[in-house]
Amino acid sequence: MAEKKIGRQTLQFSSTPIITSWASVVGPMEEKGALGDKFDLVLTDNLAGEKTWEKAEQKMMQYSIELALEKQSLLPKDLDFYLAGDLLNQIICANFTARALNTPFIGLYGACSTLAEGLCMAGLILDGGFAERIGVSASSHHDSAEKQYRTPTELGDQRPMTAQWTVTGSASYLVEKTGNGIMLTHATIGRIIDLGSSNAQNLGEAMAPAAMDTIKTHFEDLGRSEKDYDLIVTGDLGLLGHSILKELLKEKGISSDNFNDCGIMIYNPDQDTHMGGSGCGCSAVVLAAHLIERLQSGQYQRILFIGTGALLSPLSTFQGETIPCIAHAVVLESK
Amino acid sequence: MAEKKIGRQTLQFSSTPIITSWASVVGPMEEKGALGDKFDLVLTDNLAGEKTWEKAEQKMMQYSIELALEKQSLLPKDLDFYLAGDLLNQIICANFTARALNTPFIGLYGACSTLAEGLCMAGLILDGGFAERIGVSASSHHDSAEKQYRTPTELGDQRPMTAQWTVTGSASYLVEKTGNGIMLTHATIGRIIDLGSSNAQNLGEAMAPAAMDTIKTHFEDLGRSEKDYDLIVTGDLGLLGHSILKELLKEKGISSDNFNDCGIMIYNPDQDTHMGGSGCGCSAVVLAAHLIERLQSGQYQRILFIGTGALLSPLSTFQGETIPCIAHAVVLESK
Repeated sequence: MAEKKIGRQTLQFSSTPIITSWASVVGPMEEKGALGDKFDLVLTDNLAGEKTWEKAEQKMMQYSIELALEKQSLLPKDLDFYLAGDLLNQIICANFTARALNTPFIGLYGACSTLAEGLCMAGLILDGGFAERIGVSASSHHDSAEKQYRTPTELGDQRPMTAQWTVTGSASYLVEKTGNGIMLTHATIGRIIDLGSSNAQNLGEAMAPAAMDTIKTHFEDLGRSEKDYDLIVTGDLGLLGHSILKELLKEKGISSDNFNDCGIMIYNPDQDTHMGGSGCGCSAVVLAAHLIERLQSGQYQRILFIGTGALLSPLSTFQGETIPCIAHAVVLESK
Repeated sequence: MAEKKIGRQTLQFSSTPIITSWASVVGPMEEKGALGDKFDLVLTDNLAGEKTWEKAEQKMMQYSIELALEKQSLLPKDLDFYLAGDLLNQIICANFTARALNTPFIGLYGACSTLAEGLCMAGLILDGGFAERIGVSASSHHDSAEKQYRTPTELGDQRPMTAQWTVTGSASYLVEKTGNGIMLTHATIGRIIDLGSSNAQNLGEAMAPAAMDTIKTHFEDLGRSEKDYDLIVTGDLGLLGHSILKELLKEKGISSDNFNDCGIMIYNPDQDTHMGGSGCGCSAVVLAAHLIERLQSGQYQRILFIGTGALLSPLSTFQGETIPCIAHAVVLESK
């Protein structure tokens, strides 16, 4: 057995990497949401002075990593590596942000699990002794994502009630070998779960079983239960996906009292998002603006953060494929 | 300083992970090329019995990892992790292959640098003590890539003379903590270099400066020169990109006598590919079918393998962006 792998899928970071800085940038819709006053920066509109939504999304990601660095009086050159990804084809937001930073770059694709995937990889690189400081970013943008995955928002298509609202937001994190902040103690790398859903307007349903699989494996690998966490939070299952996860947990005799979902937390019920938020940016900004702050203040001692990703493409759906889903989890503890 | 990072961008794998198995699957065009008799499996045609090129590409990737496992009498469940990526939007070939394997999965996007990126990450995960055995795959498919990045091949558009031919091929590798095979001793993680090229029909020109940057950094980080390698091989610069790299090397006083490029090696001059091969599959299958065999036989003692990626999207080009490029390098030694 590898000495730092526990059970089937869980990694133990014995040197305990620290998340030392974080920053979130969102759009106006997110400012009107339940966490509206907690974000570091809010765009004036979804274009942010750019000509296209894609360029606005890239700008958001760049702002968020620059802000995370600035909070620690650091510059991009102080990063050993930069890990990032987004939802757009060929992860262009991440690529152009990495170009601006001029930092050694590792491109990731995990759909909405990207931030969790990045934190897993950052923990692994730091704990392996390969770096002192790593930047991690993820982003999504409502209009660029809807245009690419469903229909351009300008068409005004009616969204089914099972749909979620792709968050316009990006958050970045600095993860360091030493420092003050939040401890990253374990990661559980997910496997693909696909129970046959093929509806791109109901990703919560598709992703819930993947979240369940990773949570169950995490508990088994570490001999832990839901009672060991102050909060177990999924990325973007939304209201429907979250209720499905609760049913799945119940079947396994796991209490869901301390479970929540970033997609449920980010908007207010009157915002007409239907099932809540989604997108790489959803879990990324809720963690930065809200959850980490609660760990920092000591309100939470230990949380399990589970990024959930639907790894479909419009083309795979057109070709009759179902939706492969994945969930990666990280354990975060207050110091 | 992190103990296993040398200089600015290079990682040292002190436990020396071993590439224990490899397998390549290609299309009929590649069989007619210079390495035609060296691939493990050749598809009868570019559809391989599937209804779409994308499904054929996914099948190729799955065959290649299954073959790499089979050569060692292993099953997918024997992998700790699977790292993979491809050129298609949302890396669907990798996602569906990971679904078939049912293995913990980390999705990567590095365009044509993906195989090198995967080997870097595999080395890092193994050397960090987080796994015993990792599978790495990358693929590309001529028709699926041309359709997505340029125009569908069915249109019969004339290709400019600077164009390269996207390789239909996939290769997979098993990288293990111990075993017999090829040693993976170092990796150099690239940064984005973009000198302003915006022509998606001339990616060699765009990528050559990124290759140069990584090679130069690699030499500086390790205090090595071109003389320390039997071969320094780039992924898919093609004839034009390779000649540009040679000019750049000359400017720095580096001899290019032992430099070559997988894009030049894979086809025969009479195959009308113009500048040679490209795509994730290009460097992946040339390494598996040819270069690793030469390391295995002792013909090469040590090579520097540099995956080169053009991180553009059709949309970023439409929006007036230039092409951000990256190159990741790994050092491979015969045991």
